[in-house]
Amino acid sequence: MLQFLRKNNIAVGPFAEITSQDQAEELLAKYSGKMVIKTRLGGYDGNGNAVVQNVQDIAAAFQKFLGRPLYAEAFVPFTKELAVMIACGLNGEPAVYPIVETRQERNICTEVLAPAQISGEESKKAESLALQVAEHLGSAGVYGIEMFLTEDGEVLLNEIAPRVHNSGHYTIEACVTSQFEQHIRAITGMPLGKTDMKVPAAVMINILGERNGRVELKGTDDVAIIPDTHLHIYGKSPTKIDRKMGHITVTGKDVQTALERARKARKLLSV
Amino acid sequence: MLQFLRKNNIAVGPFAEITSQDQAEELLAKYSGKMVIKTRLGGYDGNGNAVVQNVQDIAAAFQKFLGRPLYAEAFVPFTKELAVMIACGLNGEPAVYPIVETRQERNICTEVLAPAQISGEESKKAESLALQVAEHLGSAGVYGIEMFLTEDGEVLLNEIAPRVHNSGHYTIEACVTSQFEQHIRAITGMPLGKTDMKVPAAVMINILGERNGRVELKGTDDVAIIPDTHLHIYGKSPTKIDRKMGHITVTGKDVQTALERARKARKLLSV
Repeated sequence: MLQFLRKNNIAVGPFAEITSQDQAEELLAKYSGKMVIKTRLGGYDGNGNAVVQNVQDIAAAFQKFLGRPLYAEAFVPFTKELAVMIACGLNGEPAVYPIVETRQERNICTEVLAPAQISGEESKKAESLALQVAEHLGSAGVYGIEMFLTEDGEVLLNEIAPRVHNSGHYTIEACVTSQFEQHIRAITGMPLGKTDMKVPAAVMINILGERNGRVELKGTDDVAIIPDTHLHIYGKSPTKIDRKMGHITVTGKDVQTALERARKARKLLSV
Repeated sequence: MLQFLRKNNIAVGPFAEITSQDQAEELLAKYSGKMVIKTRLGGYDGNGNAVVQNVQDIAAAFQKFLGRPLYAEAFVPFTKELAVMIACGLNGEPAVYPIVETRQERNICTEVLAPAQISGEESKKAESLALQVAEHLGSAGVYGIEMFLTEDGEVLLNEIAPRVHNSGHYTIEACVTSQFEQHIRAITGMPLGKTDMKVPAAVMINILGERNGRVELKGTDDVAIIPDTHLHIYGKSPTKIDRKMGHITVTGKDVQTALERARKARKLLSV
C-alpha cells in the first residue's frame, strides 16, 4: 500500500525527479509497480504523461520525452477525480467555488459534475486542501485545482492550473460570478464576487473532435430544444480527434437529470 | 369613471386620433379631464408624450409636436406598471417570460422588479394579455409588452416594443435563456429556450446620467463588493441627464433584498 506524503500539510501522492532509466526502475518497484512519468514542463490533457508498468514502458517513455526534465509519480488508485476553482485577489480572503467531479477519457476531461456527489466530509477536505494550496500561490487570478479522492476518503492534490479552467466552465451559467468575471476581478484588484451556484446542479460536457478535417456543425437545432441546455462552440477550425471544439452546460434540479440531458445533447451534435 | 375598450379581446384605455385642438378639447372632457397626447411615431422614454389637463396644455402640445400625426389617450389611473417579454419564433408557441413590475420617473424606466409582486390572478391576466397580443404580432423576435394594472385588478395594454427591451435586461443573469439569446433563437428559426427564472428574484436599476459631460466612472469597486450584484456599463459617451449609461441587476432570494442592494449599488456609483 502506498504511503501518501504531506507537503506543507497538503496530501499528495509520492513522487520524485528522475534522470535515468535505472532510477525509474527502482522507483517503479517502490511505487508498487505502476507509476506515471511526466515531463516537468508543457504538459496538458495527458500530453507529457506516460503510465508505466515495466522496463519496456520506461524505455519507451524515455525515448518519447528524450532530453526533457522528467519526474515520476506513484499511480494513485483513486475512486473519483475532483476539482475546484479558487480565486486569489490582490487583497483579502480567497474565494472558493463548489467542489466538482471531473471525468476523464484518454486523459482528457469529458464531463464535469457540479457539485461533486461526495460526502460533506470529503467536500470539506477538498475545500480545505484548496485553501491550503491558495496560501502558497504567489499571484492573483483564478486557479483550477485538481484532486484525487481515494477509496478511504483521502483527498490528494493532483495538479494546479494557474488560469481559468475547463472544470470551471460550468460557472458561466451556474454560479453568481463566472470564473471569467472572477479572474478579471482578481487581477484588477476588485473585490471577489460570490461563488455560490444559482441552480441546484450543473453538468458540463466537452465537445471533443471525432475526426480530422473541416468543421461541419450539425444538430444544433436538436440540442437547442433540450431544456436548460447551453451550447458553446469555440469557432476553432479544423476539427481534430480529441480537440476541444466547444462544450455543453446543462443546469438542473439535480446532477443526474443534467447529466442525462448533457449526454443526450452531446450525442445529437457533430462537429 | 373611464370605460376601458376591448380590441381583439385585449383591454386597452380609450384613445382616438386627433387632428385639431378643438377635437382634443372635446376628448379631454370625455376622458375625465386628464389625457396624454402622443405622436404616432418615434416616441420613447416619454419623448413624444405630453400629459394635458387644460386648454393651455393642449395648445403647448400642439406647438411642440407641430405637423406630426397625433392621438390622445385617456390618462389611465394605474396602481402599477407591468411588463413582460414574449418571444415569437418562426414556428410553434410563443415563449412568455415572468411578469415584471416596472417603475418610471420622468417617463423613464428606473427600476424593474422580477417577478412582479402581484396576485396570481393578476399575473395570469397579464400573461394571457401578452399571449393574446402575440397572436397579432406578424414577425419573429422578442417583444417587450408594457401594461397597466388598475385599482380594480384590470390589466390594460400600454405599449409594445418590437425588440429586446429594458424591462428584459434582468433575464441576462436571472433566466435560463436571456432575452438576447432568445431573440437570436427566434429570428433564426431555432426552438425557443426556457424562460424560467434561475433565481427566486431579481431587480434591475437603470444607471441614468445625472449631468451633461465627459464620463467619469466612480464607485465600481464599492458596487463590486455587494453580493449578487451585476454591473453593466454601456461605454456610451458623453453622459447626459437621464441618458441610459448602464444598468445594475441584483439577483436574490426575494425582491425586497434585491431592491435594497440594487438601490445601494446605484447610490455608490457615479458616471
